[in-house]
Amino acid sequence: MSNLRVNMLREFMKENNLQAAVVMSPDYQFYLTGFRALIYSRPIILFITFEQCSLIVPGLEEVHAREHAVVDRILPYYEHPEKANIAKTYLEVLENELKVQEGSAVGVDMNYTPGKIINEIQSVKTTVIDLSVQIEKMRSIKDEKEITAMIEAGKLVNLGVSETLKHCKVGATELEIDAIGNQIIYQTASENYPNATLDLLVMTPSGPERSILPHVYSNTRKIQHGDVIIHTRQVSLNGYRAELERTVIIGKSTKQQEHAFLAMQKAQQAALDFIRPGVKASEVDAVARGILREEGYAEFAIHRTGHAIGVSLHEPPYLSYDNDLVLEEGMAYTIEPGIYIPGLGGFRHSDTVILKEGGNLLITDYPRDLKDLIF
Amino acid sequence: MSNLRVNMLREFMKENNLQAAVVMSPDYQFYLTGFRALIYSRPIILFITFEQCSLIVPGLEEVHAREHAVVDRILPYYEHPEKANIAKTYLEVLENELKVQEGSAVGVDMNYTPGKIINEIQSVKTTVIDLSVQIEKMRSIKDEKEITAMIEAGKLVNLGVSETLKHCKVGATELEIDAIGNQIIYQTASENYPNATLDLLVMTPSGPERSILPHVYSNTRKIQHGDVIIHTRQVSLNGYRAELERTVIIGKSTKQQEHAFLAMQKAQQAALDFIRPGVKASEVDAVARGILREEGYAEFAIHRTGHAIGVSLHEPPYLSYDNDLVLEEGMAYTIEPGIYIPGLGGFRHSDTVILKEGGNLLITDYPRDLKDLIF
Repeated sequence: MSNLRVNMLREFMKENNLQAAVVMSPDYQFYLTGFRALIYSRPIILFITFEQCSLIVPGLEEVHAREHAVVDRILPYYEHPEKANIAKTYLEVLENELKVQEGSAVGVDMNYTPGKIINEIQSVKTTVIDLSVQIEKMRSIKDEKEITAMIEAGKLVNLGVSETLKHCKVGATELEIDAIGNQIIYQTASENYPNATLDLLVMTPSGPERSILPHVYSNTRKIQHGDVIIHTRQVSLNGYRAELERTVIIGKSTKQQEHAFLAMQKAQQAALDFIRPGVKASEVDAVARGILREEGYAEFAIHRTGHAIGVSLHEPPYLSYDNDLVLEEGMAYTIEPGIYIPGLGGFRHSDTVILKEGGNLLITDYPRDLKDLIF
Repeated sequence: MSNLRVNMLREFMKENNLQAAVVMSPDYQFYLTGFRALIYSRPIILFITFEQCSLIVPGLEEVHAREHAVVDRILPYYEHPEKANIAKTYLEVLENELKVQEGSAVGVDMNYTPGKIINEIQSVKTTVIDLSVQIEKMRSIKDEKEITAMIEAGKLVNLGVSETLKHCKVGATELEIDAIGNQIIYQTASENYPNATLDLLVMTPSGPERSILPHVYSNTRKIQHGDVIIHTRQVSLNGYRAELERTVIIGKSTKQQEHAFLAMQKAQQAALDFIRPGVKASEVDAVARGILREEGYAEFAIHRTGHAIGVSLHEPPYLSYDNDLVLEEGMAYTIEPGIYIPGLGGFRHSDTVILKEGGNLLITDYPRDLKDLIF
């Protein structure tokens, strides 16, 4: 079976004298085979050799995997006695595949694959080599099909944010306003995309104490007059994502809030204007961070300026001050410098941009000015 | 700082001559410390010694962790240059903590902790011992506070399923009907539980081809007359879960559907009636499986009869044919024997039960008879 991405990985395996690869990360598996499970409490293992590409799955994923995974073989293990004679555990199947590899080197995604699996691989006297970096490198450049998918996800996230923000009002809870945007996304996807799956991420930390927490589950806190809010959304449509985030003020802003908001907005705009193929990741971070520093917020700019995005919520390579990677056409990034000021609140906009020679493609959109973000 | 669960783990560490424990699973961390992040792309590590309990967190989780984690120390690593002198990476912090452990044995949750971290631990010449089984054993018995939380989650999942099923009709998509139940759960939690978080899992595979897939993301397939549907929901309220699932027929059922439905219902009821403290996990599976076999569905009963539940979507110990563990008071289980018949459809109800001497506590409820499940 021809699988371009698996063949690219085999090139790396050949160069590094690896006889096989074991891939456990669900996002890597989706990227390499097109197969995604809803739940991974029963382990799923992608096992690649030069001869064939196999997916080890629990019996209850067998039909699903046969339909969706672009691999040569599905190797199920079963938890019902009728088929236990074929294979009972993933370790049994893995061991069977590995035993012909004794003495060789096996590539593994070491950032994800758990210790138990690593031990199993090493028990057949193989050497384990990390191949996370190679897969991340492949994933970082999006192809036309991936970009098309992300553009559609962008339309849905734009709609979800726009509908949600209309309902940001005193007395509504964070969870209630999240639900508004979810609803329109479910409905619109149902109308426009046949047989499509969605995976939504949303959070809306509100008020001076919660908006300074960059990542928290939304809760049932009621929104109050004067709150600063960061409404944060990702939509994954058929496995590909776009992210849009806006900082909102409820009712009337204070001078302090305005100053912080404007600094953040200026930093985001500068990074959006600057990023392009050929610049370094660290330079993008430096552009945003330089403005925040000038405006007096250096110590509050506690995270990097953005992350790559595609299949995963966050993907490397990151736009961080210490990453000197030169960016390339086809990379997709969020641009989201943020500042989090105890006693005042958090301030962060995020947009998703795909890098193109001759002009980037911004796949998210909603007004960024304070005047449009007071509700 | 007194932390009962961490102290229980230390008893195990003492008995097994472990000098430290490294816990990476987000669910284990929440169980042991009360802290949960929304995203783990920046690693979070719980590091336990006999002297202190430390949480290694990225800088953007520092305030959040100081507020919520029941630990002695928060050890942040930073991605902004202003604080890079304190620590830049999780590996740097972990190495610093580990170096005093040279030559000792360290406990690790080997089902989750990635190879990269295991390598780091082993690089300071320690022996790595799996402690997943011990933590799972602790988690399997729910305390009063956990049971109270799960009862509340049960109320919300009951409401969500009930509201969703009212809207199961021809032409609606799986995602649209999911959204209905989500909406009422968000709204009701907002009214009744101050400062509460929610985490919803829902899927509604519909029709003969999709309902035979036990775990899939809902999609935008439109429901058709005659479809069999499995509506599946978990609600996590403040970190604790309940699960409720019902099989539904749209319009009018066929004889074949009825036969499969009744066999599944009978198997579920028998297992619900049978499960109690003192019986073996395998006996519960045998009760359900025996009925499905008698009715001619043995080969289609492809998964175990249920899983433990609490913090995680699925928790061990499982109700599987090969698990001879004796069940105890305080364990919480889903009871969900399922059959998946190509060409016909999938059939599965699930309810959540907490085992009690003198009578179990069923925390989910919705009619189980076919006559109440035709919409």
